[in-house]
This record gives sequence, C-alpha cells and structure tokens, in this order.
Amino acid sequence: MAVGFALLILTGAVLLTLPISASDGKSVGFLDALFTSTSAVCVTGLVVVDTGTRYSLFGQIVIMCLIQMGGLGIMTMTTTVFLLLGKKITLRERMVMQEALNQSTLSGLVKLSRNILITTLIFEGTGAALLALRFSQIYGPTRGIYYGIFHAVSAFNNAGFDVIGNFKSLTQFAEDPLINCVIMGLIIFGGLGFSVIQDIIARKKFKHFSLHSKVVIVTTLLLLVSGFLAFYAIERSNPYTLGGLSRKGKILAAAFQSVTPRTAGFNTISITDLKMPSKYLTILLMYIGASPASTGGGIKTSTFAVIIMMIYTILVSKEDVEISGRRIPYDNIFKAAVIGVIALLLIFTSSFILTITENTDFMSILFETTSAFGTVGLSLGLTPNLTDIGKVVIILTMFAGRVGPLTLAMALGGRTNKAMIRFPEERVLVG
Amino acid sequence: MAVGFALLILTGAVLLTLPISASDGKSVGFLDALFTSTSAVCVTGLVVVDTGTRYSLFGQIVIMCLIQMGGLGIMTMTTTVFLLLGKKITLRERMVMQEALNQSTLSGLVKLSRNILITTLIFEGTGAALLALRFSQIYGPTRGIYYGIFHAVSAFNNAGFDVIGNFKSLTQFAEDPLINCVIMGLIIFGGLGFSVIQDIIARKKFKHFSLHSKVVIVTTLLLLVSGFLAFYAIERSNPYTLGGLSRKGKILAAAFQSVTPRTAGFNTISITDLKMPSKYLTILLMYIGASPASTGGGIKTSTFAVIIMMIYTILVSKEDVEISGRRIPYDNIFKAAVIGVIALLLIFTSSFILTITENTDFMSILFETTSAFGTVGLSLGLTPNLTDIGKVVIILTMFAGRVGPLTLAMALGGRTNKAMIRFPEERVLVG
Ligand SMILES: [K+]
Ligand SMILES: [K+]
Repeated sequence: MAVGFALLILTGAVLLTLPISASDGKSVGFLDALFTSTSAVCVTGLVVVDTGTRYSLFGQIVIMCLIQMGGLGIMTMTTTVFLLLGKKITLRERMVMQEALNQSTLSGLVKLSRNILITTLIFEGTGAALLALRFSQIYGPTRGIYYGIFHAVSAFNNAGFDVIGNFKSLTQFAEDPLINCVIMGLIIFGGLGFSVIQDIIARKKFKHFSLHSKVVIVTTLLLLVSGFLAFYAIERSNPYTLGGLSRKGKILAAAFQSVTPRTAGFNTISITDLKMPSKYLTILLMYIGASPASTGGGIKTSTFAVIIMMIYTILVSKEDVEISGRRIPYDNIFKAAVIGVIALLLIFTSSFILTITENTDFMSILFETTSAFGTVGLSLGLTPNLTDIGKVVIILTMFAGRVGPLTLAMALGGRTNKAMIRFPEERVLVG
Repeated sequence: MAVGFALLILTGAVLLTLPISASDGKSVGFLDALFTSTSAVCVTGLVVVDTGTRYSLFGQIVIMCLIQMGGLGIMTMTTTVFLLLGKKITLRERMVMQEALNQSTLSGLVKLSRNILITTLIFEGTGAALLALRFSQIYGPTRGIYYGIFHAVSAFNNAGFDVIGNFKSLTQFAEDPLINCVIMGLIIFGGLGFSVIQDIIARKKFKHFSLHSKVVIVTTLLLLVSGFLAFYAIERSNPYTLGGLSRKGKILAAAFQSVTPRTAGFNTISITDLKMPSKYLTILLMYIGASPASTGGGIKTSTFAVIIMMIYTILVSKEDVEISGRRIPYDNIFKAAVIGVIALLLIFTSSFILTITENTDFMSILFETTSAFGTVGLSLGLTPNLTDIGKVVIILTMFAGRVGPLTLAMALGGRTNKAMIRFPEERVLVG
C-alpha cells in the first residue's frame, strides 16, 4: 500500500520534472517536483513553488490527477481495510455496506470502489458547477470552468492546492459567500469519510446512525463551532485578518478559518498575520484533523473523541468508556491512544530536526510540521524557504502522516492470535 | 490532600508577605508571596522575585521549610497512597515495605514516614556537608554552611531554589566538579522515588529489583545519557553556553543540563542562550520529569516508559505489553496513557491562555508552562515579567502539576466496583 503511494509519487515527480510541466519551459528541478508530487498525492497542499504561476497547464493537470488519485486511493483503501480486515464498524454498518460484502471479495471491492467514485464525482461535479458559475464571472468561461473543476477536486480531496497564483490561495475571495460556502461544504463532506456519508444518505435520521457516524458528526460539529467562536473572538479586531472585513465577511472568514485546518489547507485570510492564540488553536485543529476513511488527515475526530472520553471515564471513576449507550472496546481505546502518541512523537521528531536545520522561530516550525503531518497544507511561510534537508523532512512527514495511520490500522487488523505463553503480570507506578 | 497543600501554600504566602520576610523590610506583596510559596511547596523553583536578594534570611528559611515540607509531604503521601490504596507494586515490593505493612495502618504509616524522613536527612546531611566544604572556601564558614544546607535541601527535593542572588542560579559554578556532582547526585536520588532507593539499599543486585525499580532506573539512565550526548553535540560550539568552557567544563555542564530538567530547575549555563533544539529537548525532558513517589514532577519516567512500550507492542503486533519478562496489566497501561494526555491538555490550556495574556514568543510560553507543570523551575525569563493573570495561570499550573497526578492516582485507586449493567460494545474507527 505504502509502495503504491510511493510509486504514484515518484511517477508524479518525474512528470512534474519535465520542462513541459513548467510555465516557462524550464524544469522546476527534481526535489521541488518530488515535494509537489508528495504534497499532491498525500493531499497536503504545502507548496515550495507557486502552483498557479510556476507550473504550466499540463503540470497543473498532472497535479490535479495526482490529487484525485491520492484522495480516491486513500478513501477507497481505508474504507476497504476497515471493512475487510475485521475492523468492521458494527452489524448495522455492515448492512449499509452489504452490497459490497455479500459478494465475493473482489467483486465486492469493485462495487465499493465504484460507489466511492460515484459519490466523489457527484460532490465534485456539483461543486465544480457552482464554483464555475462564480469564477466565470471573474475570469471568463474557459478559465472559469477550469478553475471550478480544479478547486472542487482540490477541496473535496482536502488537498488545498490552488491555481490562483502567488501563494495567495483564496484570500481575494474572503467575502464571497458562494465560493466560501461551496468550498467549505466540499471540505467538510470530503473530510467526513465515506461510511458516514453513506450513513447520512441511507439512514437519514441521526438516531439510526452507527456509533461511528454519531461520534464523527458530533465531534466535527463541536470542533467547527468552537473553532469559529474562538477565531471570531480572537481575530475580530486584528486589522491584518478579520478587522478589515465587513460584518458578513468577518463571519464568513472566521467560519472558513475553522473549517480549513480540518484538513483542507486553503486560506481566505493571511495565516501569517493571525494572532498567536489563533495559530496555536490552528495547530491543535490540524493535529486532530478530519475523520477516518476520508480524504482528510490528522489523528482523526473519532480518535480525539475516544481519547477525551477515556480521560472523562477515568476522571469520574467509571469502569467502561461509554458513548451514546455503547461501550467502546479496550483495544479500540488503546489504538486511539497509540495513534495520538505516535502522531505527537512524529511531529516532535520532525520539528526537532527542523529546529536544527532551519533558521526561523519555533512557532513556524511546529506549525509547518503539524500541517505536514495532518496533510493540511496551511503554512506560516516556512515551506517555500526550506533548506534541502528541511524539504526532505517535510516530504517524509507528509508521507508518514498520510500512509502511517492506514498502515497501522492494517497491522492492527491482523492481530488475532493470542500469545501462547504469557508472562506473569507486574505493575509499575505511573504518574 | 490537595487541601493540605493549599493550606500550606496559603500559610507560606502569609508569612512571606510579612515585611520581616523581605530583605529591605518592604513586603513583596501578596501575589508575589503566593507565587513564591506555591513554587516552594510544589518544589517548582520558578521565581518572580530573586530569592537571594529580595527575601531576608527569615524569608529564605521560610522558603526552605516550605520546600522541605512540600517535598517530604509529596514523597510520603505518594508512597503511602500507592501502598495503601491497593496500588501495591508487587509481593516483592511489599516485602521490602513489610515493616510498614505488617502492622496496623496507623503505626505502619508512622514507620514509613520515619523511614522516608531518615533517608531524606541522610542524603541532605551528606550533601549539605560536602557543599558546605566548598561554599565555605568561597563565602566563609557561616554563610558556607547555610548555603550548603539550603542548596542540599533544594536539590534533594528537586526544588531548584537558590540563594546565590540575581536569578543566576549556579551559573558561576559551571566548572566546579564538587558542587556539580553533589547537586546532580542529590537531584537524581531525590527524583528516583523512595521505593526505588529502598530497593537499591535492600536488594543491591539489579536483577533482584522490582519491575518498577528496573523500569525507573533504566529509563532514568537512558534519558540522562541521551540528554547529555544531545546537549554536548548541540551546544559544544555555542559561545554563550558550552563554547566558552574548558573541555572538562563542557562535559560537566552538558551533564548538568541533562540532569536539571528532571525536574530540579537549577542551571549552570544560561538557559535563554541555549540553541532552539536544546530548548525543545529540555521541554521534552521537563514533560517526562522524574520518577513516581519522588520529589520530582512531570508525567514520570515509568509513565513514559510504559507509553513507549505500548507503542512498541502495537507496532510489532504483539498482544501484551511486556517488560523484562513481565506483562503490564491493561489498567496500568491506560493510566499511563491518560496521565500523558491529561498533562498535554493541561500544558496546552495554560500556554493557550498565556499566548493571549503575555506578549512574548511561543517557545518562551511553552517552555515556562511545561516547567511549571513539571515543577521544574527552569525559565527562559518569562516568569519575572508575567502579567498578573499570567502569574495566576502559572500558580494554578504548578499546583495542578504537583497534586494532579496524586489525586488521579487516589481516584483510580478506589475504582474496584464493576458497573452492574454494562452497555453493549460498539467500536468506532480511529486513525
Ligand atoms: K490538505
Ligand atoms: K523544581
């Protein structure tokens, strides 16, 4: 699986190294092409060169295809892995997926992939059409349609790449309701995960949803609302971000800022000019990320929710971790804790190396590393100025952040044999 | 228990507010006195005013007594809690403590406390005598003996308070082998925890130690050695820290720098002038901290070790977390994970508030908050310049970092009743 991703990245890197991929016919060089390709396949969106101006139309379409393959690939594979490796969600969840499971594995897989593909195309198609309406008014029909398609693909796959130019992302559309709402919608649905979208379509009523869908939806809503309120409160009077906008613009931009760290990576206001608490909060949101079996990254909303419920359970001296009348199994809780800690160790290791190789402030380093791990793509401006070692570190972090959790899930899925001989128990004092 | 600590802190604060406690006869004010008292009782060592110059001899002795009571209190209480609340280490461990346990609870407690007191006095007495030898050469006999006692108490209790003056800590003794070695020895033994010291004295041979003692000793050694190597490598050529020292001085200072974040808080080189990777590494070491049932803080070496072994177990697809031929029980692993995460949430919350209230860089804020949580006392210089809200936040963080883990341990110790009705299991996808 990791090998497949690596091959796709390498192919992309070779294509992007070609002179035909560059806007001025001069190759961007292999390291920068590798960085771009990794960022696209891992749907991260961190860029060392500006996508809109440095790459030709050919290069941009290569990037769009890499995003689509990376996004679809991860969504299909995670959904498959969770279904096939015995990590089924519940009997209920399985019933929704029964088309895919009641048949032979291969044909079931084909059906599942087709369903995911169709869902993706419906969302991206609708999004692209709506975006094209607006972009056509600004850039004319041809460019408008192309921009519509590119940004719809980039948004639904939580890639965060843009072709507007000059590293500006969507800042000039900060007050545009249509573009903001469409992009936010695509990001949110892309980040919910296929099984949750299926649940919403098939069951309609919240109380009939699987526990997983309930946890994902509630956690996502809580994060979005609290993020919005916090960004609005902190940045309202900051002249470099929300301060200069109209009342409506302030609300739109604060909402967008709470959506994008999970884990889209577009921005409508200047990330560099955010106040320190906002940057810090963004780091936390990027770490948490989107939901499992989606196009987004991070440790995932459900992982975060299980960890929080684990703490709550311990604090109120309860025996079981219970959510919505269901008990979460021990191995499930463990896995959540392990994913949370491994993510932290990865972020620590990468940012530790960057504190040695890069000459910048600590916040920028931690922000950029978390962004790379969570495949977010937001940046305080460090990425375009990275040293070569720094680029390699960020490339590896993006890759680990993308394929790491899935590989872990696969490894954990296979754990069924109990050890024959177990050692005697002995406890150590902790805390 | 938390109430006892709070009362001690308040009493200390009132005493330190008295004009007689200040060197110039003018009260330091209640907030600063409260800060100092909290810092002393929680054996943290963060200071808003300089201990050596701002407080009178009376004030300094009050501080020394607060340190001693805080340190002894926490050591006795944690050891007791772990023994009495069923969180016994093992049958073996119990045998070491059998004097204390074979009798009635009350008289057992008295014996245990006496053993801890005697151990403390032996270490502090020896340390004070050795330090006084050297300090007398510099400051004359009276002051030398006083300095010896104060700094031995401060070191064994991992308090990090000094009376050298002008926030300089032990920087002028960076190359003094006697002072360095005595202080390092006191810090390390104070941070090992009473049960480990007992184990070393009673059993002598490593292979006969309890699992807990083995884990603590190995983790401590690994952290010390890797910290030493890292600091030496990073700071060797930094003219503001190790660069200006002799070869011997470099080794001494790098060693001291790896010992002090666990969680003593003295410094022999300028912490502010450390390179960024060293500061970052110091934050990690402060977060990990010392060992349970000791005078040190942090999440504890054994907690860290269990978390690392949990990750290793998952990565190699094993069923049980095994250390040295022993299996760690599930609830033990959980508790370690919960402590690790709660600590992070606490540090995040405190530092988030400080990014709003304080006007400084992110590294300083994260460093100071972790130092307060781990009751370390190292500082990048933010503490003396804190706003009033900032002081309150740090006071609460020190308090939570000190009594939090113990309160948690007590709460967990009582968890014996299984819930009568359990909810059905249902899993959520994580990662
Ligand atoms: K992204
Ligand atoms: K300390």
